[in-house]
Amino acid sequence: MRIRPANEGDSPAIWVVLEPIIRAGETFALPRDMSERDALAYWRAPRHEVFVAEDEKGSVVGSYFLQANQLGGGAHVANCGYATAPRARGRGIARAMCAHSLEHARQRGFRAMQFNFVVSTNDRAVRLWESFGFQPVGRLPRAFQHPELGEVDALVMFREL
Amino acid sequence: MRIRPANEGDSPAIWVVLEPIIRAGETFALPRDMSERDALAYWRAPRHEVFVAEDEKGSVVGSYFLQANQLGGGAHVANCGYATAPRARGRGIARAMCAHSLEHARQRGFRAMQFNFVVSTNDRAVRLWESFGFQPVGRLPRAFQHPELGEVDALVMFREL
Repeated sequence: MRIRPANEGDSPAIWVVLEPIIRAGETFALPRDMSERDALAYWRAPRHEVFVAEDEKGSVVGSYFLQANQLGGGAHVANCGYATAPRARGRGIARAMCAHSLEHARQRGFRAMQFNFVVSTNDRAVRLWESFGFQPVGRLPRAFQHPELGEVDALVMFREL
Repeated sequence: MRIRPANEGDSPAIWVVLEPIIRAGETFALPRDMSERDALAYWRAPRHEVFVAEDEKGSVVGSYFLQANQLGGGAHVANCGYATAPRARGRGIARAMCAHSLEHARQRGFRAMQFNFVVSTNDRAVRLWESFGFQPVGRLPRAFQHPELGEVDALVMFREL
């Protein structure tokens, strides 16, 4: 697997990764009917530095973005969003992207990383972030309407770098 | 005092409110040297519904914005930002804007409100939000670089509507 900066031509492949996750509506706080254009405008926002993970065949199987979570006095804390193609789950792609993002955030001079909205029922993600040393520093009560489970809590997770 | 939707012509008056707060850098996570243009683009972002508070002379002494804090499954939680002109502090303007925003958020169908980044040393704000029933649901360790106090915590505050 290789993780590299996304280029303009990666947008269709990033959409292939994002679309099933957005349509499922179980983990991202994004409209389930979001268009490709809107989703890519969100993922590839000007402030986002975007990477893609390629498998051994050069196929994009994941993507993540990194940004400052706040500006001004809060600009030393990074924020990331990660997406793994559902068909490629279980191959350590999210883990590799998280490791890459922590290292890259350190290189950029960030001193901490924060995830603002981890759906509490997303066990896979919560366990993964915890394995990287992220701790829940906040719990947002019933802040996420899960399509199957109804209103569930979301977590704020944080770690120093 | 009157609180009303902001119109296009209010931008200069909103900047007069925002500028000293941004320059002080003690409460907003925005660059202290932020330009008028960038500050207004932030405050009046397309997703923000913006209001102004006028005093009895029709002078703008405060402004707030309201938006969905997240999209999709998180879109039932509102988020606001408030600014009171420093010269008009102590006159209940922030309190009036908060009350207005809670009522307006209810009318728009939001079911909760969240503040993502309340600087923990901003006693005036913390006390005010607590008096409105907001509770700290998260604490972001050393997430804000205060110009006088160094790194201080920020709070995530939340209440149902």
